[in-house]
Amino acid sequence: MRRPPIRGCALILFTNDYNRGAHPAVLQAIADANESSFPGYGADEICARAAGLIRAALGGADADVHFLVGGTQVNYTIIAAALRPWQSVLSADTGHIAQHEAGAVEHTGHKVEVVPGVDGKLSAAQVERAALDSQESTVAEHITQPALVYLSQPTEFGTLYSRDELAAISRTAHEHGLLLFIDGARLAYGLGSPGNDVAMADMAALADVFTIGGTKCGALFGEAAVLVNPAMRTGFRNQMKQNGAMLAKGWLLGLQFEALFTDGLYRRIGAEADARALRIARVFAEAGVPAFLDSPTNQQFVVLTSAQLEALSEGFGFEYWQRVDEDHHCVRFCTSWSTRDHEVDSLAAAVAALPADVGTRAMSTGRE
Amino acid sequence: MRRPPIRGCALILFTNDYNRGAHPAVLQAIADANESSFPGYGADEICARAAGLIRAALGGADADVHFLVGGTQVNYTIIAAALRPWQSVLSADTGHIAQHEAGAVEHTGHKVEVVPGVDGKLSAAQVERAALDSQESTVAEHITQPALVYLSQPTEFGTLYSRDELAAISRTAHEHGLLLFIDGARLAYGLGSPGNDVAMADMAALADVFTIGGTKCGALFGEAAVLVNPAMRTGFRNQMKQNGAMLAKGWLLGLQFEALFTDGLYRRIGAEADARALRIARVFAEAGVPAFLDSPTNQQFVVLTSAQLEALSEGFGFEYWQRVDEDHHCVRFCTSWSTRDHEVDSLAAAVAALPADVGTRAMSTGRE
Amino acid sequence: MRRPPIRGCALILFTNDYNRGAHPAVLQAIADANESSFPGYGADEICARAAGLIRAALGGADADVHFLVGGTQVNYTIIAAALRPWQSVLSADTGHIAQHEAGAVEHTGHKVEVVPGVDGKLSAAQVERAALDSQESTVAEHITQPALVYLSQPTEFGTLYSRDELAAISRTAHEHGLLLFIDGARLAYGLGSPGNDVAMADMAALADVFTIGGTKCGALFGEAAVLVNPAMRTGFRNQMKQNGAMLAKGWLLGLQFEALFTDGLYRRIGAEADARALRIARVFAEAGVPAFLDSPTNQQFVVLTSAQLEALSEGFGFEYWQRVDEDHHCVRFCTSWSTRDHEVDSLAAAVAALPADVGTRAMSTGRE
Amino acid sequence: MRRPPIRGCALILFTNDYNRGAHPAVLQAIADANESSFPGYGADEICARAAGLIRAALGGADADVHFLVGGTQVNYTIIAAALRPWQSVLSADTGHIAQHEAGAVEHTGHKVEVVPGVDGKLSAAQVERAALDSQESTVAEHITQPALVYLSQPTEFGTLYSRDELAAISRTAHEHGLLLFIDGARLAYGLGSPGNDVAMADMAALADVFTIGGTKCGALFGEAAVLVNPAMRTGFRNQMKQNGAMLAKGWLLGLQFEALFTDGLYRRIGAEADARALRIARVFAEAGVPAFLDSPTNQQFVVLTSAQLEALSEGFGFEYWQRVDEDHHCVRFCTSWSTRDHEVDSLAAAVAALPADVGTRAMSTGRE
Repeated sequence: MRRPPIRGCALILFTNDYNRGAHPAVLQAIADANESSFPGYGADEICARAAGLIRAALGGADADVHFLVGGTQVNYTIIAAALRPWQSVLSADTGHIAQHEAGAVEHTGHKVEVVPGVDGKLSAAQVERAALDSQESTVAEHITQPALVYLSQPTEFGTLYSRDELAAISRTAHEHGLLLFIDGARLAYGLGSPGNDVAMADMAALADVFTIGGTKCGALFGEAAVLVNPAMRTGFRNQMKQNGAMLAKGWLLGLQFEALFTDGLYRRIGAEADARALRIARVFAEAGVPAFLDSPTNQQFVVLTSAQLEALSEGFGFEYWQRVDEDHHCVRFCTSWSTRDHEVDSLAAAVAALPADVGTRAMSTGRE
Repeated sequence: MRRPPIRGCALILFTNDYNRGAHPAVLQAIADANESSFPGYGADEICARAAGLIRAALGGADADVHFLVGGTQVNYTIIAAALRPWQSVLSADTGHIAQHEAGAVEHTGHKVEVVPGVDGKLSAAQVERAALDSQESTVAEHITQPALVYLSQPTEFGTLYSRDELAAISRTAHEHGLLLFIDGARLAYGLGSPGNDVAMADMAALADVFTIGGTKCGALFGEAAVLVNPAMRTGFRNQMKQNGAMLAKGWLLGLQFEALFTDGLYRRIGAEADARALRIARVFAEAGVPAFLDSPTNQQFVVLTSAQLEALSEGFGFEYWQRVDEDHHCVRFCTSWSTRDHEVDSLAAAVAALPADVGTRAMSTGRE
Repeated sequence: MRRPPIRGCALILFTNDYNRGAHPAVLQAIADANESSFPGYGADEICARAAGLIRAALGGADADVHFLVGGTQVNYTIIAAALRPWQSVLSADTGHIAQHEAGAVEHTGHKVEVVPGVDGKLSAAQVERAALDSQESTVAEHITQPALVYLSQPTEFGTLYSRDELAAISRTAHEHGLLLFIDGARLAYGLGSPGNDVAMADMAALADVFTIGGTKCGALFGEAAVLVNPAMRTGFRNQMKQNGAMLAKGWLLGLQFEALFTDGLYRRIGAEADARALRIARVFAEAGVPAFLDSPTNQQFVVLTSAQLEALSEGFGFEYWQRVDEDHHCVRFCTSWSTRDHEVDSLAAAVAALPADVGTRAMSTGRE
Repeated sequence: MRRPPIRGCALILFTNDYNRGAHPAVLQAIADANESSFPGYGADEICARAAGLIRAALGGADADVHFLVGGTQVNYTIIAAALRPWQSVLSADTGHIAQHEAGAVEHTGHKVEVVPGVDGKLSAAQVERAALDSQESTVAEHITQPALVYLSQPTEFGTLYSRDELAAISRTAHEHGLLLFIDGARLAYGLGSPGNDVAMADMAALADVFTIGGTKCGALFGEAAVLVNPAMRTGFRNQMKQNGAMLAKGWLLGLQFEALFTDGLYRRIGAEADARALRIARVFAEAGVPAFLDSPTNQQFVVLTSAQLEALSEGFGFEYWQRVDEDHHCVRFCTSWSTRDHEVDSLAAAVAALPADVGTRAMSTGRE
């Protein structure tokens, strides 16, 4: 019996940034190590070396670096490690932990307190208000106490916090005794964006803990947790194990992050995908298809008519985001490390041939 | 900057069965698929095909098959899915969930009730006693109610349940309203053992849920959860997601299990490693080094003197299990899919050259 | 040494409905039983008799009745008993479980999904939308699945659901596979209100589970959980014990509910307190102090100017609810079984003497 | 309709120490306060006064004192407050939390690690061994880390730790970074025993947290949690609320503990019950009925033949503990604050009339 040939999807997929395996350099590193033996659970020299490369990329910051497998997993493990039982995590209502993780944070026993996001972002003012509301409450014992601010860079909408915005949030959080956690599941696409002014060293300076996403950024799988605040570090590996987040063959994660942080690969992956995404944005704009919001990274949200939606669905995969009005739909096009120029060419040709939007439309904002 | 060469451990490692990457056929499957795009979260045709191959290996049993990443993760996800809040899981005291998973089951809110194991195994009589004790208790509401029997095949000590033993446990559990979960983290080494009479189809017939281990049996990583009892199936994928156990690039797991269940690879991996392990057992026996207990699978436990321990430690990695007496130590030698004949040759030569055990020793049993 | 005299608060308290001990009939029942011995944990004839009286008040409905100690406790115990791990509870954003229970529901691992309430109430249409949104989602496994509707009768704002409204919510919930839980912490004040058309028998017919509040309605402490849907009943006592919600001297709860459900005391308590509350509402209206919203039960919300607030604070305790605008404040006055006419007389005199509200004000709705 | 008369059990109950309401002084305090209004949730002057009396009884120790309702509740709330997620609590296998609380501790996510108790007690040596085993383990991240020692004074078998034993356990625990929690659910009966040399001030000096039981010691209900170690205090009231352990009418608990700690009532209650229990022990001994173990407090365990068991069951309630052999049974007789001399007289007469034990019997120890 022979294994049938492996065939993926027939459409060209802009659905997400995790529909292909790994950057060739990552896969090669795994193949090269396949004949060697390693200690288990991340206690190997590869993981140590990868952690060192990451610390170097942070400008030599003092931080513990651990490697976990997936995004939901690393998020709830960090959040549960940061909070005591009566504390909650503060997030924009569009935050990944608030919307797309199956209640994983609540499953660890903690409430996700949400504030209305603007283009996927929360503000220092909102953090201050939430902190004061809970701390000054006359019934403080009857409400959860936010003790951690969660945000993602880039956000769920592809937008970016500026360094000033992050600095203000960090300062406000710390003034009120809250920690700051930056979810970097798509960090490469933030770092590589022309619109970005937040360096990795800034993140280490401003956040108590943050992640460096591998799964969506060129790795086969894997997320790095960077624990800056010493208070986050105690018992973290025990909690990884307890949460099923400690890979037996931990060196597989070290190998991948070593490859990603050698010769600037991680940032280059982001920059190339962002460039292709911005080309897609221009293509749509030139065809008169409006953006849902302005994103400088690898996720582009545009508003299609029903006819346009149907036309593009024949050759391309993309994600339906939300209905805008009777005849208009917000959809997302994602590029990634694996997007090729000829795929964008095909999309550009199809967009140029789209039927025009002749109707009227009440444009919505990112936040409704 | 060039990546430094990848070097594993200098010793020959018999420490465990997960110190190398993946069987070449598995790695090749991942490499072959790297240019293709796939839907995420296991909703792809590769996973469907792998599940089909597994169902075929079960003799066509009706079962849901899901692919998760790691052993602790799959164990606690299954256990939490099987139990209501007031219920507990019954295990031998040497069970992996009772000893080596950092309290992951308790972390989900459930007590692990232990009974004394014999050579790592529990018995139908113990299951019956525990069920009756809890159900007939006059204070039944004040104690947890065991609702799931957990056992592993092979056990932590490499021993095997016979088909008759499993059938008795299954029958007893079901008579008293308990489910049966068989942890098959090392299942290949059970299936491949000359001492085994339990086929995969038997497991599907006797257990409500069981796992097929990949991580220790030739995969890069991955465990298959086989849900036989329909009561186990509802909401399982939601719980995978909530427990951080749903891999974004789920097809990576499908690819590996497809490779393992093509052309009998999974069983062959087990048979070859068992043969090498049994050769190691003979080598020790011929050198007068006693077995700690009799194992027909890939884990061999022997009792070394301190001098022997020191001598073997120079060239080989193996696991210290427990002190037996002042001068004797139980240690474990593991083979795996990646063990090579020349590695066993080297060990055989070293064992033949060991200093003799001249002292007296009170031999211990597997259970103390 | 002699115990110093017991002195409560010097102000006349309209702060809440639990600032005094117990209705004399309740206290007498406890005193009368003090010389007798009883089996523990609610397995006594008094609890059985009280449960029988409650079932009779429900028109003979088939229901399990259990007695717990407090409101937060009974709410989270019921909710955790109703949900599987991946499921959530749906509530108005002003619901007690969403606002005032310190994250107790999340602490059990479940998300509270909120919808915007109107005067503290959610609607059948909102239930349907939430059910469809989660069930029809293309990422249903990535979001929690609401499986229980939570509402309170009366609500946090003292408002009441009509029988038609409850029937519509019940029908919609059941059509979509959700259960309905009615929190009756203040049920007496609903039953006793002239604006109420929901009988206890209606609650048993429409809800899968509901509570009958004692703490706020004349008992020293205690809440009755009425489990109508058989699916709610399995293991409930185990869960009570596990959640610290099974009182050792359970008969103390039975005694109190027996007293409350003898000779119509429970309803009478509600009717008398409601009458006093509605008199307070009239007193404020006559003084030109506007109601924040229209409540037919024992909680009255009015909007005071800063000067009025200060004036009333000298002699009375009441609860600050929220700021309305620069110079206006929503406050709550509560009556209860223990409110006396002379206390209302004093309040009426003070209100009549309030300074007038001469400013302008943008009136807010109950929902902001 | 008139309430039927309240009748308790017809037998004379020695079943437990919580089968009657409250000491008259406690009930009187509740009755006296019934006309007064109080702030809710324990923020009243009565609770403050009761906490002051308790601190005085501790010799003026600096400690936070909180009042909770029940024993299981206070135990798991304290344990969950003391532990981080990866930590466990160490207990004798006969400990209340290990046996009789429905898995409440595991329900909070923590493992109860057990060591074999002797007469219900664990030892400093066992604490040291457990601490070293976990901390020195080569797989420390794969096992839970005990961080709290749990013991009860008196134990489940009525036995007492000496001051020297407690001091050794305290010293050992603290040397290894563990906290000490003493469960004083029956503390009055320890304090009042002629065999006791542990003063309340000793407990405050040796334990990080302990409880003073009310439910079994003369209160209607209620347990005081004494938090000595400042690390235990942060957020404790939030956790009480979250765990359903904050009574709305908190002053009811303050009133009871104020009464119990006025004029030495708490200790007197214990001393009188112990005296009656020791009389029961003598009565059995004089009748040739052997003790199961030697208890100096209010619980007495004796070994009855089947015929004796049957004979005593006609007029008395007592608790069946465990089968000793074919014809012998360990049973428990409890006295309490509510036991009267004439009840003991009746028992004495019945015991004197028991049929003799003519068979042979293999006496068991407290630990099997």
